[in-house]
Amino acid sequence: MAIIKNKSPVLFFYNNSKKWLMNISKKESLHTHIGVLKHADAIGKEYGSRLMTNKDKYVYLLEPTMYDYIMKIQHGTQIVYPKDLGYIAARAGIQDGQKILEIGTGSGSMTSFVASIVKPRGHVYTFDVDEKFMKIAEKNIRRAGLSKYVTQTNLDLKTSKEIPVTEMDVALIDLGDPWVVLPKVRQMLKGSGCIFAICPTMNQLEKLTIALIENEFTDIESTEHIIRTIAAREGKTRHSFQGIGHTTYLCFARKAFFGRTAKTIAKTTAKTTAKTTAKTTAKTTKAKTTKAKTTKAKTTKAKTTKAKTIKKSTKN
Amino acid sequence: MAIIKNKSPVLFFYNNSKKWLMNISKKESLHTHIGVLKHADAIGKEYGSRLMTNKDKYVYLLEPTMYDYIMKIQHGTQIVYPKDLGYIAARAGIQDGQKILEIGTGSGSMTSFVASIVKPRGHVYTFDVDEKFMKIAEKNIRRAGLSKYVTQTNLDLKTSKEIPVTEMDVALIDLGDPWVVLPKVRQMLKGSGCIFAICPTMNQLEKLTIALIENEFTDIESTEHIIRTIAAREGKTRHSFQGIGHTTYLCFARKAFFGRTAKTIAKTTAKTTAKTTAKTTAKTTKAKTTKAKTTKAKTTKAKTTKAKTIKKSTKN
Amino acid sequence: MAIIKNKSPVLFFYNNSKKWLMNISKKESLHTHIGVLKHADAIGKEYGSRLMTNKDKYVYLLEPTMYDYIMKIQHGTQIVYPKDLGYIAARAGIQDGQKILEIGTGSGSMTSFVASIVKPRGHVYTFDVDEKFMKIAEKNIRRAGLSKYVTQTNLDLKTSKEIPVTEMDVALIDLGDPWVVLPKVRQMLKGSGCIFAICPTMNQLEKLTIALIENEFTDIESTEHIIRTIAAREGKTRHSFQGIGHTTYLCFARKAFFGRTAKTIAKTTAKTTAKTTAKTTAKTTKAKTTKAKTTKAKTTKAKTTKAKTIKKSTKN
Amino acid sequence: MAIIKNKSPVLFFYNNSKKWLMNISKKESLHTHIGVLKHADAIGKEYGSRLMTNKDKYVYLLEPTMYDYIMKIQHGTQIVYPKDLGYIAARAGIQDGQKILEIGTGSGSMTSFVASIVKPRGHVYTFDVDEKFMKIAEKNIRRAGLSKYVTQTNLDLKTSKEIPVTEMDVALIDLGDPWVVLPKVRQMLKGSGCIFAICPTMNQLEKLTIALIENEFTDIESTEHIIRTIAAREGKTRHSFQGIGHTTYLCFARKAFFGRTAKTIAKTTAKTTAKTTAKTTAKTTKAKTTKAKTTKAKTTKAKTTKAKTIKKSTKN
Repeated sequence: MAIIKNKSPVLFFYNNSKKWLMNISKKESLHTHIGVLKHADAIGKEYGSRLMTNKDKYVYLLEPTMYDYIMKIQHGTQIVYPKDLGYIAARAGIQDGQKILEIGTGSGSMTSFVASIVKPRGHVYTFDVDEKFMKIAEKNIRRAGLSKYVTQTNLDLKTSKEIPVTEMDVALIDLGDPWVVLPKVRQMLKGSGCIFAICPTMNQLEKLTIALIENEFTDIESTEHIIRTIAAREGKTRHSFQGIGHTTYLCFARKAFFGRTAKTIAKTTAKTTAKTTAKTTAKTTKAKTTKAKTTKAKTTKAKTTKAKTIKKSTKN
Repeated sequence: MAIIKNKSPVLFFYNNSKKWLMNISKKESLHTHIGVLKHADAIGKEYGSRLMTNKDKYVYLLEPTMYDYIMKIQHGTQIVYPKDLGYIAARAGIQDGQKILEIGTGSGSMTSFVASIVKPRGHVYTFDVDEKFMKIAEKNIRRAGLSKYVTQTNLDLKTSKEIPVTEMDVALIDLGDPWVVLPKVRQMLKGSGCIFAICPTMNQLEKLTIALIENEFTDIESTEHIIRTIAAREGKTRHSFQGIGHTTYLCFARKAFFGRTAKTIAKTTAKTTAKTTAKTTAKTTKAKTTKAKTTKAKTTKAKTTKAKTIKKSTKN
Repeated sequence: MAIIKNKSPVLFFYNNSKKWLMNISKKESLHTHIGVLKHADAIGKEYGSRLMTNKDKYVYLLEPTMYDYIMKIQHGTQIVYPKDLGYIAARAGIQDGQKILEIGTGSGSMTSFVASIVKPRGHVYTFDVDEKFMKIAEKNIRRAGLSKYVTQTNLDLKTSKEIPVTEMDVALIDLGDPWVVLPKVRQMLKGSGCIFAICPTMNQLEKLTIALIENEFTDIESTEHIIRTIAAREGKTRHSFQGIGHTTYLCFARKAFFGRTAKTIAKTTAKTTAKTTAKTTAKTTKAKTTKAKTTKAKTTKAKTTKAKTIKKSTKN
Repeated sequence: MAIIKNKSPVLFFYNNSKKWLMNISKKESLHTHIGVLKHADAIGKEYGSRLMTNKDKYVYLLEPTMYDYIMKIQHGTQIVYPKDLGYIAARAGIQDGQKILEIGTGSGSMTSFVASIVKPRGHVYTFDVDEKFMKIAEKNIRRAGLSKYVTQTNLDLKTSKEIPVTEMDVALIDLGDPWVVLPKVRQMLKGSGCIFAICPTMNQLEKLTIALIENEFTDIESTEHIIRTIAAREGKTRHSFQGIGHTTYLCFARKAFFGRTAKTIAKTTAKTTAKTTAKTTAKTTKAKTTKAKTTKAKTTKAKTTKAKTIKKSTKN
């Protein structure tokens, strides 16, 4: 029976839009517009119990799940939502023991989600160029208790010649221009390894799909995921009036070998990259690239160590 | 570098609707309408490589993921699809180390999926009453290499007085009448533990929601998940003409304590169960209950041991 | 070339969420948070021209369409949205010359929409019991210039013995308990005539479908209509972040003759109505029925004349 | 009471996927896999009645609606579906008395639909370049009894210098490259007039949106419409397992005047057209343009007269 203690993490849950995630601190109180709760009153209670605020509202003391950490994450950027994260895990078959490459750590929500699945024997190697985000991500990952399973590196994989990791099971890309890193991702991914890219626009799906074929990927699939909430009530069941809009499209593929020589691939890729970069990249990725400019491949201090190339793959 | 050997599992992939999952057997061949492939030709190749059939079609030799096992599972009943499985994992925060209760093993697809996530330290306890399905499920779980993390039991939790497991992190219910087992599920679930029920009809959502409230659950959420495939092609990107229809609705909740006495709950629940059973259960669950009639709580032989009640929870 | 004059209707359009529908009144001004416009400045301009507010914002002077009237209608109740109205028209094949029966006038938006299609040779006969709504509807219908094609009657078709109209091409029902009026609607509808009911809940669809079969309707179809807005922009095309939630489900059917005697139908129907009424109607339609209680079948004054039974159908 | 006579049109309806539309011919029989029906047996029956086939299946004798004509239309090309047609009518406010321009007659389904609404005082002017389609369309429009309200012209509005009609209320474009005709459509449309383009791909939406802005249109809206069928049955209500895939996206706008000189617009437009034509048009519209090449602006014989420019608009 899990009992709440001082410092225990608790999701104070009133309803799905009013909930607060925090660690119990025996001298503190939670002040909300539905009333005040003393943390001390939660201590000794079983998770799932409820307390009444001084405004007579019941608040449930829930044990936070990864879902709660993701929905309550501190984020300066768009997060990847559970509906999309879930499909990524299910479609790529993410499971215990896998090594995951992530390019574009962002606020660390996807990082945390996959780390919670691949642990304890797997690991997430995540790369970003924005030191500010890296710090936010580090904090979020630590809060979810997953730092041990994540290596954060400040490295621009778009420009770097380094191959910091290899034989990855799955690669997750959350960049404005995912096609740029494909040749490098290929080198880091094991044969038949899965790739998932977060693509908020149709144009990204289109460009990425072309680049995936050129870079010898197969089983390419672009999807979007719509979650609809249903208000189930006696005699009045219907979909929720509140609509849920677009979050992102997803692009999946698996690394194959078409049997062409490495040279041929390099040429084709170079050509395409040139073509797509010329017009588009310039426009769509301005925000991201300016960020990258000012940061050099220095590692952030605590917990983030520069990943070494563990093994060089000769055939890619 | 993962090399295909004799007995290695391989997904022979032509396209998303033409793919074959099998273990390499060096003297066998794969005969399809797109031509013939000798298994022996795959041996020694890296996963991701491709072979050409005698009809000049390329077939990729992919390393099967959990997704492939689920999509190629032998099933006599409706399976739960990856789009729905993914959301279940993400919303309930399923992760390494958890103990999962499943009522209604079916063909074992959901069982395998969650086992692949909670392993190596977690475990899935799954219950069914249909011996035929239990054997299919056992085979499917074994094929995915997950038998070690799953305990299958032939026990009708609707009628049994036993509490075979307790302190479960998550309960997954795939029955026609999920509300019937709620009082028992409560006893097996830890405080704040998550429940997910597979509900193909709106009527099930409605009845279950009412029963969840009576059984002191909170954070109740009914959803449906629509996946749309996008045909991303240069200058012609659009959604796929092929539509994907309804699979199931999902109902989520977390175990709470309303502070009522156990007696009160029992009374309310009894009343409701009587009410809902009267008319509906009789109709909607005929198929399931007739199956249950003929099977007694005997455990199937190999691998399936009758789970003992590990610990009796006193407060529920 | 359509020129704006004094008293011309104009939709002052800034963007899809900021637009104002009014008649030009040469001494008035439009005061908005994006600035002030003098009506007089619009006079003499061609529809489609734009004016600049004193805050340097362009506002377009559009000629209002039926869509604009519906979206800007004064409504005290939920309106039927264009996405649903459009399907009603297309599925029932509503066209010039038809006679339409509407039960539940509401704010008159559906009334106006169908009147704009069936005019000049067709007509809409609409019935409601709430005098307040009837006045709102009357005003809205008049504003859209359609009073000539609409007869509004204050009559409770659920209880009245009258058959005020017959040989209708299409019947539109917007009541909480549409199944109650089916026997009567049958008498007013021509053979093979179409029916459409606005059903915000799944339970209504279910009850109505059962009642439609008992009342000898065929080609029964329940649908829901999701409109998704796409933000089409150079290199960044994607669905809109703003989601659109549930409005209503729609239930369609056509009047058939099963060849049973009128007596048999009456009996079956009576039984069902009793059954469904017993539990459900009591709950779901409280709001509507209380309204009905206080109004007697008096016609409202101007423009609304009590429709006479034009022809008595003997065979139903 | 509408009685079926010899030559009456009848929809023989078994279910939504098994239905036959034909005119009664007293010596003929309908042969289907659900049995045989003699047309003569339908004569004298009221619409809505049913007959039994020699295989004991009931078939309903329904009075065809515009929906039935559209769904049963002879089409060599993709038709526009009722769910999309309905929104077009509702969003553009199509109603009795309007003059509609259609570019791309196709099989005449959209032509027939809008003609059925704008009649008797309105008219549809439709243009195509493919004589084969024009004949199919003519037959379909005649069958629906709407020839009187439609003028079909064989004219390539992409290349022609003619302005065959003006002051249109609504323009409907069903071409692979709708942006090419925008400057000309503008000249044919009244101020504030509505435009709707059928755009099966996201790329078309994107290019068209850019061109609409350059051609001084406002209230631009791109949408897609998803229809979901619900299987409403007692105690088992759920969405249909049968999914409905993508049909087309729709792009709406209204003609405005930005107050720029005609010269400026011409220049900008010329530039854009050049730009978009260069790469894209070449690719995406090959099929359409080759068809156009071989046909000259000759009118087809019966019923189709070359529309004259009724009035020249000086200001566009």
